[in-house]
Amino acid sequence: MTEYFNSVEKVTFEGKESTNPFAFKAYDADKVILGKTMAEHLRFAACYWHNFVGVGSDPFGNPTYDRNWLKGSNPMEIATNKADAAFEFFSKLGVPYYCFHDTDVAPEGSNLREYIENFGFMVDYLEKKQEETGLKLLWGTANAFSNPRYMSGAASNPNPEVFAYAATQVFNAMNATKRLGGENYVLWGGREGYETLLNTDLRQEREQLGRMMQLVVEHKHKIGFKGTILIEPKPQEPTKHQYDYDTATVYGFLKQYGLEKEIKVNIEANHATLAGHSFQHEIATAISLGIFGSIDANRGDAQLGWDTDQFPNSVEENTLIMYEVLKAGGFTTGGLNFDAKVRRQSIDVNDLLTGHIGGMDTMALSLERAAKMIENDHLAKVVAERYAGWNGELGSKILNKNFSLEDIANYALENDVNPKEVTGGQESLENFVNQVIYS
Amino acid sequence: MTEYFNSVEKVTFEGKESTNPFAFKAYDADKVILGKTMAEHLRFAACYWHNFVGVGSDPFGNPTYDRNWLKGSNPMEIATNKADAAFEFFSKLGVPYYCFHDTDVAPEGSNLREYIENFGFMVDYLEKKQEETGLKLLWGTANAFSNPRYMSGAASNPNPEVFAYAATQVFNAMNATKRLGGENYVLWGGREGYETLLNTDLRQEREQLGRMMQLVVEHKHKIGFKGTILIEPKPQEPTKHQYDYDTATVYGFLKQYGLEKEIKVNIEANHATLAGHSFQHEIATAISLGIFGSIDANRGDAQLGWDTDQFPNSVEENTLIMYEVLKAGGFTTGGLNFDAKVRRQSIDVNDLLTGHIGGMDTMALSLERAAKMIENDHLAKVVAERYAGWNGELGSKILNKNFSLEDIANYALENDVNPKEVTGGQESLENFVNQVIYS
Amino acid sequence: MTEYFNSVEKVTFEGKESTNPFAFKAYDADKVILGKTMAEHLRFAACYWHNFVGVGSDPFGNPTYDRNWLKGSNPMEIATNKADAAFEFFSKLGVPYYCFHDTDVAPEGSNLREYIENFGFMVDYLEKKQEETGLKLLWGTANAFSNPRYMSGAASNPNPEVFAYAATQVFNAMNATKRLGGENYVLWGGREGYETLLNTDLRQEREQLGRMMQLVVEHKHKIGFKGTILIEPKPQEPTKHQYDYDTATVYGFLKQYGLEKEIKVNIEANHATLAGHSFQHEIATAISLGIFGSIDANRGDAQLGWDTDQFPNSVEENTLIMYEVLKAGGFTTGGLNFDAKVRRQSIDVNDLLTGHIGGMDTMALSLERAAKMIENDHLAKVVAERYAGWNGELGSKILNKNFSLEDIANYALENDVNPKEVTGGQESLENFVNQVIYS
Amino acid sequence: MTEYFNSVEKVTFEGKESTNPFAFKAYDADKVILGKTMAEHLRFAACYWHNFVGVGSDPFGNPTYDRNWLKGSNPMEIATNKADAAFEFFSKLGVPYYCFHDTDVAPEGSNLREYIENFGFMVDYLEKKQEETGLKLLWGTANAFSNPRYMSGAASNPNPEVFAYAATQVFNAMNATKRLGGENYVLWGGREGYETLLNTDLRQEREQLGRMMQLVVEHKHKIGFKGTILIEPKPQEPTKHQYDYDTATVYGFLKQYGLEKEIKVNIEANHATLAGHSFQHEIATAISLGIFGSIDANRGDAQLGWDTDQFPNSVEENTLIMYEVLKAGGFTTGGLNFDAKVRRQSIDVNDLLTGHIGGMDTMALSLERAAKMIENDHLAKVVAERYAGWNGELGSKILNKNFSLEDIANYALENDVNPKEVTGGQESLENFVNQVIYS
Repeated sequence: MTEYFNSVEKVTFEGKESTNPFAFKAYDADKVILGKTMAEHLRFAACYWHNFVGVGSDPFGNPTYDRNWLKGSNPMEIATNKADAAFEFFSKLGVPYYCFHDTDVAPEGSNLREYIENFGFMVDYLEKKQEETGLKLLWGTANAFSNPRYMSGAASNPNPEVFAYAATQVFNAMNATKRLGGENYVLWGGREGYETLLNTDLRQEREQLGRMMQLVVEHKHKIGFKGTILIEPKPQEPTKHQYDYDTATVYGFLKQYGLEKEIKVNIEANHATLAGHSFQHEIATAISLGIFGSIDANRGDAQLGWDTDQFPNSVEENTLIMYEVLKAGGFTTGGLNFDAKVRRQSIDVNDLLTGHIGGMDTMALSLERAAKMIENDHLAKVVAERYAGWNGELGSKILNKNFSLEDIANYALENDVNPKEVTGGQESLENFVNQVIYS
Repeated sequence: MTEYFNSVEKVTFEGKESTNPFAFKAYDADKVILGKTMAEHLRFAACYWHNFVGVGSDPFGNPTYDRNWLKGSNPMEIATNKADAAFEFFSKLGVPYYCFHDTDVAPEGSNLREYIENFGFMVDYLEKKQEETGLKLLWGTANAFSNPRYMSGAASNPNPEVFAYAATQVFNAMNATKRLGGENYVLWGGREGYETLLNTDLRQEREQLGRMMQLVVEHKHKIGFKGTILIEPKPQEPTKHQYDYDTATVYGFLKQYGLEKEIKVNIEANHATLAGHSFQHEIATAISLGIFGSIDANRGDAQLGWDTDQFPNSVEENTLIMYEVLKAGGFTTGGLNFDAKVRRQSIDVNDLLTGHIGGMDTMALSLERAAKMIENDHLAKVVAERYAGWNGELGSKILNKNFSLEDIANYALENDVNPKEVTGGQESLENFVNQVIYS
Repeated sequence: MTEYFNSVEKVTFEGKESTNPFAFKAYDADKVILGKTMAEHLRFAACYWHNFVGVGSDPFGNPTYDRNWLKGSNPMEIATNKADAAFEFFSKLGVPYYCFHDTDVAPEGSNLREYIENFGFMVDYLEKKQEETGLKLLWGTANAFSNPRYMSGAASNPNPEVFAYAATQVFNAMNATKRLGGENYVLWGGREGYETLLNTDLRQEREQLGRMMQLVVEHKHKIGFKGTILIEPKPQEPTKHQYDYDTATVYGFLKQYGLEKEIKVNIEANHATLAGHSFQHEIATAISLGIFGSIDANRGDAQLGWDTDQFPNSVEENTLIMYEVLKAGGFTTGGLNFDAKVRRQSIDVNDLLTGHIGGMDTMALSLERAAKMIENDHLAKVVAERYAGWNGELGSKILNKNFSLEDIANYALENDVNPKEVTGGQESLENFVNQVIYS
Repeated sequence: MTEYFNSVEKVTFEGKESTNPFAFKAYDADKVILGKTMAEHLRFAACYWHNFVGVGSDPFGNPTYDRNWLKGSNPMEIATNKADAAFEFFSKLGVPYYCFHDTDVAPEGSNLREYIENFGFMVDYLEKKQEETGLKLLWGTANAFSNPRYMSGAASNPNPEVFAYAATQVFNAMNATKRLGGENYVLWGGREGYETLLNTDLRQEREQLGRMMQLVVEHKHKIGFKGTILIEPKPQEPTKHQYDYDTATVYGFLKQYGLEKEIKVNIEANHATLAGHSFQHEIATAISLGIFGSIDANRGDAQLGWDTDQFPNSVEENTLIMYEVLKAGGFTTGGLNFDAKVRRQSIDVNDLLTGHIGGMDTMALSLERAAKMIENDHLAKVVAERYAGWNGELGSKILNKNFSLEDIANYALENDVNPKEVTGGQESLENFVNQVIYS
């Protein structure tokens, strides 16, 4: 079999002084932190699309990557080459999981019959590769946004036949995900949005989308899929406005369709920042609403208004992310999927390795620091003390619905309530976090 | 009585060729459009705060306005001066409505007892002014964000005494609004958000805020207030993140606390754009979710990241707004409140007049064009045709829950579904709108 | 010869009530305004790239347009088909000018020899088409950003061979532009910027870029090209940062390399807004610096952070643009080139027509209103009066360098200078502009 | 004398494990790095305005800080109290430098005579405080933006009397800076910009501004001030557009007025990000243009569109800043001034201490890492190798002007130039930087 990544047999942990670009400096899979190994905490996945489908084009430029696995005499040969390359890469990198879209792994063909045939063949192939390598599927998904038929939406398309086409892909992708032992199934509605309100019926499109979500949940239960259904929020791009804008928006949608116990969110760092939120905001919001599921680990560029999908490299940012995750009990079915791509100028196959190694080391360093923050419960204590008043009589009466608005007003007047301000202490707390990160 | 605005007796409609800066060129209050007068459609309000409280300071500069009504020997004298000036202005301008915060109209005093006394006195005074002038109250609200006690939130404050203080203001402001015949009561949570997640318990603060909303709704019913309760979304500023970020976020919140039939939204143009949405998006979204209430008419600056609250002056933008409003049946209790302020360099009292005149003419021009779009039902027809397929068998089966995901997949395969793309026609629709605006 | 646009023989002016989607409602080419025809004022150009090369792909989606002119048995046949389609389109649309990149019109081949041969053949072909149709070339340019060889820059590439390759294209494209009677030559440095400062030598890259600009100017004079050399500013995309960020940045660059009298700017609306400026700001700045050249007429989306290149459709925005242009004396060699593309869902060839018709009508409406603003010199008068003090003694002494800092301080103290504020009158001026637009 | 900061005698270095909030964890003033002490490298300054003038108000809220030094029976008593508090603070904190605006330190009075008298008295007082404490002045400046007279600009005001008033302040502030041994004089044109182009003459205002800069430079030489004149770029706020938008814009301005050897830039992190640039971009650009002077160390909020002026706390960001500074030879007259303020909720005087301690520790940690990057010359080597081709024959001929455009085209054709792409290696370089930071 062709070897596509011959610069390394296996990426191993060599420690922080190593000068080997193909070694981990921080990620030590078996190192135990707070009772679990790093691998168990971080549940890394690499993705199929950016690494094995992407070619380095951009809106102003042609492909720059010259990938051997994309050379072949016919689409199915290329598909198996891609699978071989992908599993070689995942294995050498040492991620326990991978993720895919249906059309990443198999040619979509020119009609549904071909699609099903091709995809079926490749699911068999992936199953075999999983067995050979021990790799697991973090999540599967269906690409219902690249084909021109989806240009005006998939579930939210004005044409119900397009809905039906997408539903058929989702049906097959869910079944495949179950068969391959996938731990989650993801919905990203890349075209579920609008380009102009002038030709759009928002209420109608929302109904269609709501029904699709319900169909997915019903199917999940019917086939006994035990994983989690996840929606991945994104505010816009490629559309002008996407209906799953951010976590709070998805929550309202789930509540409307009675799905808030059935569907969780897969939060991507770069989507958070495009929506005008910090990555931490999106994670903390999802946790506070009980819908946190999984993470697409990457980063955007604070100066650019599109999805750059760079590898995470800020320990400062990700320490707070891992702190939120640990505080909430850690991942269950979710994990850290690198929905990240090497830059268009990073044309060597080895750049795929260094990109992921940097990302994994970043998350490992962040995990270690987050664990220290959990062990030293300073932040939690400060927060608990700050809200302590709500455990008192007044607070309880308010929250337990013992007081009407008038009761509260009477109480305040009778007691001449005149609360004194106390410092929010933001600078001290920031100093504390930095001390944890840098000591 | 002192006359504060002596350059005009009454702003009147003089038509589009008038060179009088203090005349309407387009707003002709009694002109009938689609069966109602312009005044009935637009339901204009001017606000108390920007016009009679604001002094032209900014974060880098001291006050620039020298307002005669702010001169007086004691706070209550200034308060009555302000009311005199305000009602003179509202009357001369010819808006049928006004809006206020409790602390705009009365000094807040140094404790609740003084607050209640001052506010009570001024409510009497306002009642008298309303009778004299025929002016009506579009909405009242309580300012629970300027006083230092609210620096860490009002309802979402870590200290329940601050909640109680705010509740007391809300109680009094709601009662006053009812007494003054207000048609809505507005909640803007200027400090209901966070500065740093490090000291914030999101779930706790959300619970507090949810309880406050419920208290307000319960009180409304208790006192028999017939108006609408409105929340005004804003994404941030002064906070880093505000909990009523945008319409979709407010909707999720309302659903969580069972309030989606009780509370609607008051949408501000500048808040929409700060949240990363077009103004039309927020209006259309609110209408599609059934929570559209009222509008704070202003505009932001596309290049500035803060709330500039400029007067609306784009007929192109507001034609689409009025089209959405007319399509939805027009305002009920809501209206167009100018939450807009003259620029810091616009130091003449007359600038208050020209600012509002420009805003009112803009909305009148927009109304006329929107009415033409309604009369010529081209857009509605295009949209109806675009989604017509959903009235067919396949569409109905999907939306009526007759089909499972598997049924749809079987249907698609058996019928070899292969939908053809049709143009979205965005450019044609944009041309149509411009033709309506400019012919 | 194949007819590609068979829904229309020729787009003609039918007036504002016309319901023909393929007629001008406002653009009446021969109508005289301020002594020149609309056609002479507006100098419209359509572009080759978006219309005849673009296929409707985006970063998340495959091509959606199915263009007959891109079908052919070999690259040169396709190239001549494209030219036939392009000139049919330009002629039917009635724009007097067109614009192209070298690689739009001819296949770039696999080496320089092939490039030169292909391009040479097509320049002959274009020359013939120009003769047949009477169309003229507003500007030519070279595409030194799409080919992978330019992924790290063209003139600013770390490898001088890439510079040489780009220089060869520029050499050929300039010569072709001259031969085809082009009135300008444009430089857009799509890759002249950086992705990361970590691998970038800013000073070195600036030197390289400066030298390229000088080479271009020297070559212009050598071959006797009478047109204008133009740089098109853009802040970023595809790069993280582009060296010709905005007009002010380009000015600094031109000053450094002694080129401020030799090179002007071609300002694109969407690039202006991506740089954080209004379109008017960029035009007014260029005029005030004496480097205004030409316009790429389009618009961005205020909510999106990438170059959407939509057709201009705001008369409100473009009235101010045309006002600036008229005030400055109108275009000389420049014009209004539609660097605009139909939306990805606008898949009909007719959408190319409606897109341009809307753009041309928008600019015609804007021209008419701008002319009214010039005729009614209210704005100019207000501005002149506002600065009138600078014509007095104090102002003259300051600007004519008769006063030192100390002299001014002494003067101020002796005269107890205590200037009084006067209103900036922004709202009044905005009302005036709207009255011109809407009456 | 009143002690204002009684929680600490002197902030000292206690090392990374210290739990004392009022101790440095990383900043060890006398520690030698690359041959200089940390103090010599970092040249810290604290500012007068945010710490001793600011009261915690914002556009939606009243003051929250209750500062003892702002209590007094008259303005001059308050001014001396402020000075006492400031010097106590600076001394206890252990910064070697401070910075001020004229109106921070003395009441501006109601006319120029009072201004000069008050300021003169306070300069004497500051001189005495400097002698007592050993503190030095990093830079002085004049506030020509807060007073209403400057609402339409200072040097760029339509009224030359306002220019004269500002010039008088600048004259006095420069003289005071010289007398107090200031090492730089700063110009920040907070109002040198426009609110609307409708009332603005860009060319005229630029001329006025250019003349002011020349006057300042001429005065500097006349009085023998040896420090550096600095301009501080900012894109907007409070204005819609500020003329010293960013470093590249200032460079163009300096070139136009022949000042590029006389004036340098004082770069503020938060201003960089508001202008759409990374902080590193602005520093690297200034260095590459030869106009880097000093730094206002702070940070913005990536999600907020206004100047939050938070304390720097990202070692990841500031390591790259200090790397740029060290590569360029370190500061000369410039330094790191904390133009940073505690949050509105941080109402304790102690928060001023923790804010600065966090900032100083951040910069110390960054310096240490930057020094490692200099010692390990990996990055410099990579960059040198990347551009090595420009030292060869082709590169030299291009840059040394031996080749015309035609020569280059001939060379390329004759040599069949066909450059091969090499990886940009961004991910590897980012991994390298992170390894330096975290090992």
